[in-house]
Amino acid sequence: MPTATENISVTLPEWCERFAAPGEVFATAEQRMALAVRLARENVRLGTGGPFGAAVFEQASGRLVALGVNSVERLRNSALHGEMVALMFAQARCGSHTLRAPELPAHELYTSCEPCAMCLGALLWSGVRRVVCAASREDAIRIGFDEGPVFRASHAYLEARGVEILQGLLAEEAREVLRDYARHGGLVYNG
Amino acid sequence: MPTATENISVTLPEWCERFAAPGEVFATAEQRMALAVRLARENVRLGTGGPFGAAVFEQASGRLVALGVNSVERLRNSALHGEMVALMFAQARCGSHTLRAPELPAHELYTSCEPCAMCLGALLWSGVRRVVCAASREDAIRIGFDEGPVFRASHAYLEARGVEILQGLLAEEAREVLRDYARHGGLVYNG
Repeated sequence: MPTATENISVTLPEWCERFAAPGEVFATAEQRMALAVRLARENVRLGTGGPFGAAVFEQASGRLVALGVNSVERLRNSALHGEMVALMFAQARCGSHTLRAPELPAHELYTSCEPCAMCLGALLWSGVRRVVCAASREDAIRIGFDEGPVFRASHAYLEARGVEILQGLLAEEAREVLRDYARHGGLVYNG
Repeated sequence: MPTATENISVTLPEWCERFAAPGEVFATAEQRMALAVRLARENVRLGTGGPFGAAVFEQASGRLVALGVNSVERLRNSALHGEMVALMFAQARCGSHTLRAPELPAHELYTSCEPCAMCLGALLWSGVRRVVCAASREDAIRIGFDEGPVFRASHAYLEARGVEILQGLLAEEAREVLRDYARHGGLVYNG
């Protein structure tokens, strides 16, 4: 039995390093979302995880801060959805448990699919100011994923605390990744 | 700027190693919860994090599988609530992204405080069969923590998917830890 001080290591797949570099500028909302969707597609194509990708940017400059891809099966850790991985790396790079630290610029997260209940809660604690989604909760449910207890009031709760949520950007491209994953019999893990 | 393949390391504070060993048997529900509450108290006393502790057990045998303490500030990672840390270590030890893998016995999580929105979602994906809570959402809110979008329907959602939720075991002991943390001016981080 391992000791209590063993460590759990959260990593990105190696191909991510060649894919986009932190610091690279993505000027428009479409460019930022296109990156999140391409991450989802590559994660499926290369067999490194579920059909979900995310990225954190500095809102004003468009500088890429961190990438995330679904890593649940690869790292045997059900918490490692794409959004969670991107937020963890963003906070590690900023050296802060909140992206709203006074010395930091505003941050936003782009995700290829609307966040599940866990990720929505995580976004609230992360300090991002805006979340932009491509595919919807219904799109994920359609291929068999459970999205957890998210209600209209859940989004309103975040909005009331200064986290803007935008939906449907490049939705068709993101849905295509979900459909492709389902068509090839990708693992659908739920509770 | 670090590369994409850097790693994020999730660790427990060193004192946890001397505190309880995985494999140790906690026969009753009260003993299991007492461990979670002691973890919360030690985390405050030793200055290693927020006033929240959790532990995962094999349900039938009472064998301890993993510990967790709030590690948000220590590891600069807003996802690392006590429940999240305990679940991550439990899955690492079981070598599975779900504690409901066919070869595994039923697992349950004890937490010194009712899970926030993120942790509730995470519990659904984790594969635990039962969640037992000490202090309530209201107790955490009373000392200034935001618990996120959790509604009565959120608990019902988990119950409907076979995750039993029990509340109020050793609640007074857990509340005392929360009050103590507030009294000594511990960091209350929110979104």
